[in-house]
Amino acid sequence: MPVLNSLKRNIAEYISGYVDGEGCFSVSFSRRKKLLIGWETKPSFSVGQNYDRAEVIELLKKYFDCGSIRRDYSDKTLKFEVRSITDLIQKIIPHFLKYPLLSGKRKDFELFVKICEMVQKRKHLRKEGLRKIIQLAYQMNKSGKRRYKQEEIQKELFR
Amino acid sequence: MPVLNSLKRNIAEYISGYVDGEGCFSVSFSRRKKLLIGWETKPSFSVGQNYDRAEVIELLKKYFDCGSIRRDYSDKTLKFEVRSITDLIQKIIPHFLKYPLLSGKRKDFELFVKICEMVQKRKHLRKEGLRKIIQLAYQMNKSGKRRYKQEEIQKELFR
Repeated sequence: MPVLNSLKRNIAEYISGYVDGEGCFSVSFSRRKKLLIGWETKPSFSVGQNYDRAEVIELLKKYFDCGSIRRDYSDKTLKFEVRSITDLIQKIIPHFLKYPLLSGKRKDFELFVKICEMVQKRKHLRKEGLRKIIQLAYQMNKSGKRRYKQEEIQKELFR
Repeated sequence: MPVLNSLKRNIAEYISGYVDGEGCFSVSFSRRKKLLIGWETKPSFSVGQNYDRAEVIELLKKYFDCGSIRRDYSDKTLKFEVRSITDLIQKIIPHFLKYPLLSGKRKDFELFVKICEMVQKRKHLRKEGLRKIIQLAYQMNKSGKRRYKQEEIQKELFR
């Protein structure tokens, strides 16, 4: 029973190590005509894994006591994901402040913290706040794919 | 200076977490006509990573105080690798016995330990020992690629 044993270990550092390899802090943007500002800001923390390592995905959900596990049938992966801004601020961020990442991913995390704090203060609902958030978000995960170019959103926001 | 800070932390569990996601215990076999038995047994522990996360690769080398770092120019990755049986037995295996993996990769590790102990006792140099080692090795990393089919080596060994 690895999960039960693990609860007797101090697995906080194990979690940070695992996430430093396999986790992702990201902030994406979607067009939402119903929103006054026209764009939805979506911060999320996620960890993907093949089915054959489901143990750790379940451990993450138990450890952080929030988020959800989704199955992606297309590429046979499981994904642990936290999207609630309250959970991100109260449960996810404090963990990684206490047990920091050691790789370059730490920089993404630091940007993520700034953005989540702004979202919590509802700054993403006003143009100047959203403009700043977008600038920060586009410095994250440089190798990742983006649906929209930064200029595209900024231009639309300030036209 | 993340590496220096990390040395003040207890990063043993962090290392196990990182390796549970990104590491690989493997045993491969190569034809070697110069060897009496005709096959070389090569256990190795490795962790690959994109250039942008070189920090952790260097940390692993420092932490385990053995192994080497190789650059793979083809896919822009760095690889930390330990092949010395003495280092595997004295430095790598004891770490993961003390701070166990929590994913299914633990089963690969347990097979790896059995094989390394047999190699240390030089059992891979005799047919009966090598036959057993091959049987164990082919239960590991089922999703990985193998150059030879198990039957192929076993058949050649006992013809």
